[in-house]
Amino acid sequence: MEPQLNQEVIKTAAAHDGPIETDAVIVGAGPVGLFQVFELGLLEIKAHVIDSLAYPGGQPIELYPDKPIYDIPAIPVCTGKELTDALLKQIEPFGATFHLGQTVTVVQKQDDGRFYVETSKGTRFLTKTIFIAAGVGAFEPRTLKVDGLDKFDGSQLFYRVRNPADFAGKNLVVVGGGDSALDWALNFTAGNVDGNPHKAESVILIHRRDGFRAAPSSVARMHELCEQMEMQFIVGQVSGYEEQDGKLVGAKVTGSDGVTRVVPLDVLLVFFGLSPKLGPIADWGLDIERKQLKVDTEKFSTNVPGIFAVGDINTYPGKKKLILSGFHECALAAFGAAPIIFPEKGKIHLQYTTTSPKLHKVLGVETPVFD
Amino acid sequence: MEPQLNQEVIKTAAAHDGPIETDAVIVGAGPVGLFQVFELGLLEIKAHVIDSLAYPGGQPIELYPDKPIYDIPAIPVCTGKELTDALLKQIEPFGATFHLGQTVTVVQKQDDGRFYVETSKGTRFLTKTIFIAAGVGAFEPRTLKVDGLDKFDGSQLFYRVRNPADFAGKNLVVVGGGDSALDWALNFTAGNVDGNPHKAESVILIHRRDGFRAAPSSVARMHELCEQMEMQFIVGQVSGYEEQDGKLVGAKVTGSDGVTRVVPLDVLLVFFGLSPKLGPIADWGLDIERKQLKVDTEKFSTNVPGIFAVGDINTYPGKKKLILSGFHECALAAFGAAPIIFPEKGKIHLQYTTTSPKLHKVLGVETPVFD
Repeated sequence: MEPQLNQEVIKTAAAHDGPIETDAVIVGAGPVGLFQVFELGLLEIKAHVIDSLAYPGGQPIELYPDKPIYDIPAIPVCTGKELTDALLKQIEPFGATFHLGQTVTVVQKQDDGRFYVETSKGTRFLTKTIFIAAGVGAFEPRTLKVDGLDKFDGSQLFYRVRNPADFAGKNLVVVGGGDSALDWALNFTAGNVDGNPHKAESVILIHRRDGFRAAPSSVARMHELCEQMEMQFIVGQVSGYEEQDGKLVGAKVTGSDGVTRVVPLDVLLVFFGLSPKLGPIADWGLDIERKQLKVDTEKFSTNVPGIFAVGDINTYPGKKKLILSGFHECALAAFGAAPIIFPEKGKIHLQYTTTSPKLHKVLGVETPVFD
Repeated sequence: MEPQLNQEVIKTAAAHDGPIETDAVIVGAGPVGLFQVFELGLLEIKAHVIDSLAYPGGQPIELYPDKPIYDIPAIPVCTGKELTDALLKQIEPFGATFHLGQTVTVVQKQDDGRFYVETSKGTRFLTKTIFIAAGVGAFEPRTLKVDGLDKFDGSQLFYRVRNPADFAGKNLVVVGGGDSALDWALNFTAGNVDGNPHKAESVILIHRRDGFRAAPSSVARMHELCEQMEMQFIVGQVSGYEEQDGKLVGAKVTGSDGVTRVVPLDVLLVFFGLSPKLGPIADWGLDIERKQLKVDTEKFSTNVPGIFAVGDINTYPGKKKLILSGFHECALAAFGAAPIIFPEKGKIHLQYTTTSPKLHKVLGVETPVFD
């Protein structure tokens, strides 16, 4: 599900020959990553934002876009989508550049004190500071836990459909009970994927129970197609697989009756939803305590000077994983980073958005005149 | 200026014979004090809120009710009044009791571990915890700085008009250039104060310049009354006083020409606006650093267990006086206080307003049903 976003505020990086040289890279475009743009912006620090998802908003958008949130201060109730939209509007004046659908794969400290950062899409940066606002980690597809099956990942086992044409004319087994599983099962059965005819030879849907977390109309359509013998639905769980000459040829499916049957296939498509992974951040040499980055409460700096951690990914005495705490951490991290980015400026004094003409200029608003 | 408030959410304390027994007393009804009600409410802790002003909202309402604030997270712009209204709406479910127009005068630790708290209006509490959210302190009238003059404070020198009848038939000197000075000067001249005739014998308005921070209509009316010889306006500053038999008989007023004249009077009314004072909090035995209360960053506790400090009044390494930081401090202080209030409950686990049926019950909202 991809929310509608105000595309005006989302600049996409142009192609660069060399790495992008910048003052700040923010890893994570959830609420806290977005507010980090704001707090850096007030100090006239421009930021590049990287996120594994294809859109900003992070966990509230990914996990509960339409569920109400009640504890954002001074917002009695809002949805994840409304929260994201409000933050995107708030950071509009600061022209952050977004690099979406990619994860950070490399972070290396350079001799000049800067960090070399590279993403899974090959975007490269040289940055003075890094703000990790990665929440519970990058969202990755939940995998099917069957010993040995992962060797077919990318050849006959897929957790995403990148190119529907690859599956045309194949015998597909689709596993899962959510919208993704239903939609792809229906699309490959009907041979109508994004308006293009990529009809599979056969489609078998497998789900652990006869109940779905999907649009009722999709479920009804699936049952209709099953009655018409266009596709098949089996209640059961994939408990093993059959292999022949190094190729995956069947899935062992254990039904609720405890009986295991082999379902022949060319391709196994699994849609178990997304789950967060700390990923390569675990290898950056940062102090980690139970999958969280240890920070101080003065600057929210990790043990590596120049790398800050804000929001759900950090830990310190008293830490609560609250969005409102992340907001506070962004403010102090920005002040902590400023001396690294502007070593010549000396101490950065706090100014108020209500009264500071300088901040009004940065925000692009007029300073009201009072006697 | 008294903003319009949603009176429904402001319960006023009923008369009590004994002290009010409660779990939490919040000192200060600014944005941070109000959000402390929310964070305590989520943990099912009811609070009493004390403020020196006659209405909630604190500094943003008192100092800039109509100026835009840009750095409340996810609220691109709001006024102090809008911020206050939103917070009052957010805390509505928690039924806090407000005790307004009074300052805390006594805080004493009791043998049973609770605190005895008394206010300037005689309201008394026995409370398990105290949250000081007093910002820059209680707002008190700015005083006229003339050596020795303060001995007349309350007899012939006043910074507030509590009982207009006291000034009927007197020769008044009113000092100041804001709405309060203008309004009282006009009212005592016209003998029409809140509909009651309390006419002064004479009224002389003194302001340092011929320009006012007051409603133009009041300024026009004042000039009109001066032309009609009903009152007098003198440009100048009070630089001394004349005394006779222990009574104040005149104000020495130095004009812009450098000449000092004596203006005879019975009563001196000074309206220089409000300025914040830490007040008796300074005497509660708390660790103070440059007029701020030292706290830890785990629970935002002062050095006295059970007394927490949140918002602009506290200090810790990295502290920035930002409303959004105060919000974070409220959350952690509430979790810090819970074990004192509910010693039997053990560790209080964080729950999310988006998903917790328990919090939905506390908030008075329905839990959405998802498959």
